[in-house]
Amino acid sequence: MKNPSLQKKKHDAVTLKAIRESAAEIHSRIERKSKPELRYPIRGLANVRYDAKEGYFELGRAKAVRTMTVNTVKTFAQTLKMMALSKELIATNDFATKRDAYYQSKNWEEAKFDAQEESDTLMDDIEAMFSVHEVSREQLRFIPDEHGGAVAGSLVVYDTDLETGKVEKIDCTRFGSGAYSIPSLVEHLTFETKADFILCIETGGMFQRLQSHKYWQKANCILISMAGVPTRACRRFVRRLSDQCKLPVYAFVDCDPYGISNIYRTLKVGSGNAAHINQFICVPQASFLGVTPQDIVAYKLPTHPLKDVDIKRAKDALKNDPFFKIHKPWAQALEQLVKMGVRAEQQALAKWGLNYVIEEYLPRKLKDPARFLP
Amino acid sequence: MKNPSLQKKKHDAVTLKAIRESAAEIHSRIERKSKPELRYPIRGLANVRYDAKEGYFELGRAKAVRTMTVNTVKTFAQTLKMMALSKELIATNDFATKRDAYYQSKNWEEAKFDAQEESDTLMDDIEAMFSVHEVSREQLRFIPDEHGGAVAGSLVVYDTDLETGKVEKIDCTRFGSGAYSIPSLVEHLTFETKADFILCIETGGMFQRLQSHKYWQKANCILISMAGVPTRACRRFVRRLSDQCKLPVYAFVDCDPYGISNIYRTLKVGSGNAAHINQFICVPQASFLGVTPQDIVAYKLPTHPLKDVDIKRAKDALKNDPFFKIHKPWAQALEQLVKMGVRAEQQALAKWGLNYVIEEYLPRKLKDPARFLP
Repeated sequence: MKNPSLQKKKHDAVTLKAIRESAAEIHSRIERKSKPELRYPIRGLANVRYDAKEGYFELGRAKAVRTMTVNTVKTFAQTLKMMALSKELIATNDFATKRDAYYQSKNWEEAKFDAQEESDTLMDDIEAMFSVHEVSREQLRFIPDEHGGAVAGSLVVYDTDLETGKVEKIDCTRFGSGAYSIPSLVEHLTFETKADFILCIETGGMFQRLQSHKYWQKANCILISMAGVPTRACRRFVRRLSDQCKLPVYAFVDCDPYGISNIYRTLKVGSGNAAHINQFICVPQASFLGVTPQDIVAYKLPTHPLKDVDIKRAKDALKNDPFFKIHKPWAQALEQLVKMGVRAEQQALAKWGLNYVIEEYLPRKLKDPARFLP
Repeated sequence: MKNPSLQKKKHDAVTLKAIRESAAEIHSRIERKSKPELRYPIRGLANVRYDAKEGYFELGRAKAVRTMTVNTVKTFAQTLKMMALSKELIATNDFATKRDAYYQSKNWEEAKFDAQEESDTLMDDIEAMFSVHEVSREQLRFIPDEHGGAVAGSLVVYDTDLETGKVEKIDCTRFGSGAYSIPSLVEHLTFETKADFILCIETGGMFQRLQSHKYWQKANCILISMAGVPTRACRRFVRRLSDQCKLPVYAFVDCDPYGISNIYRTLKVGSGNAAHINQFICVPQASFLGVTPQDIVAYKLPTHPLKDVDIKRAKDALKNDPFFKIHKPWAQALEQLVKMGVRAEQQALAKWGLNYVIEEYLPRKLKDPARFLP
């Protein structure tokens, strides 16, 4: 197991170096009496590329240049102040959410932000700028406002205290019917496990069923409750856990265009408008256990008709989403779903008995993970 | 500490008795060749009363009668099947969410539900019907689809395994930067604590700040992350914890009509359309630490203008909400807020430094809890 304190020091050193170099370049331009400028990768689906081997939506090379002029001077100053805030957070071993950063700016006199949208956008720009140096948002000590994601099963998490350096050992088999709630910042966590796989579950209800009946014990696995589209912290947690412990990740979500193209696709390859951080937080090793369109047929599941918005979402994905263009089995599965005109929730398995999912469905599926959708 | 296994057996006996008696009454009516009927309390704000001494929105006495006729025979059958499901869940020591129950009904042949809204409504009716016998939704083994709420601090939770009876000891000081995630069903939990109070926090960002800096150690308290309007499981957890350990509950939320009249009011006295369960899940002993409208002035907090929807919400509350009619200091505070025309987030305190909330704001407030808003 890597030493998280050393790891953090190394990361901090990389981050500080990147901040100092950016600042030094601006400083030297000013000394040479030329206009200082900052280069940002352009964020958005149009500047994204997807290579199934790399495994995530990558930021393209298109860049925007912000040159300091009379019109941009305020934004320019704000960018530098935000970089200084990051440097200060590293020095004081602290962190800030987007909201925290916005309110901190109220002390920046003329450089203060008038609305949180402005400071949010600028923080995203800075994250994108530094992602080129392989520095993540978390290394800049900017953390999401929302945590989220619950964990139960065969896993020990080691958490090093930010202030004292003391290491806490958290045994995720020991939460009874409750669970371990993932913190906003997960970079400092390390793991120990003998589990065979990670099961990421869409709904709180299904997670509670599997957790209360200790399914993780029967199947020797780790259960993660995503509760809809997983938060950044949750995705980063799964990614780090899977990378460090070489564990496969299986997704178990509703069979509808939202579950497939939003929840699963975001977990696996990330999203278009946050492409600058996908390299850190997506989980390319994930595969799709179910519920698949074919499951609806094979298990005679109760269904709901697809709504217009579902059909539109599926058709958009088939037409524009690089993920579905590259993975043919996925394109076929989505097309099958649209043709069937129905969707099914993961809890629809309860038709065959409340614990059918534990006794029949999951064991059958897990006999052959090679057949999971990519 | 009460024995949770004994407690559960007692509850189960009460629940089974209530189910059996309702069924027997219908049976005897049929034997007497009169039309069987069921009586439900009417759910809705119009059938709610609020007595500050009782402390929560109580269901009024208005009742609807459903007599079995040709038109109601299906609903009538569904009601009995749903009661039978509850009885079976108790017998098998299991539970079902609303979704689970809906899908189970797919095996009820002609009595199956065509849409989940129907089964949800009927489950609410049954809950209301049995609440008259002081039987809660959880005792019927119906649990919410969503869990939610994270806990950190000076608290040990004892969780008895549903299947094995083994008791798990969960120490909420030992989760590092993470937390304990509250399960959907909390009836079987017992507690041990030396904390002085429970602090319920609106945002994940603020919770993470207090948790990462171990504020619960400095202030000897228990931190609860509500993440917006607290889930039923979260409210019931706080209520049981506070009742059992005689702990005061302080709410720390944004200063806006939503934080005050939705989040705080729901935590303390419950909501109108779920009045049949308020007696179990609201927290009448809660008081309001902040952020108060007066705090905006006293701490010179950065604000946002109130939106039209905020103003409407506040005016509605002042006019129609029994809570604000009874508690004059609250009516005054809301009026002050509307007059000021602004709102402030709890993270606005970050203007004075990221950890000002820990070093100044909370200690000052906690010197005088008697001055908290009711």
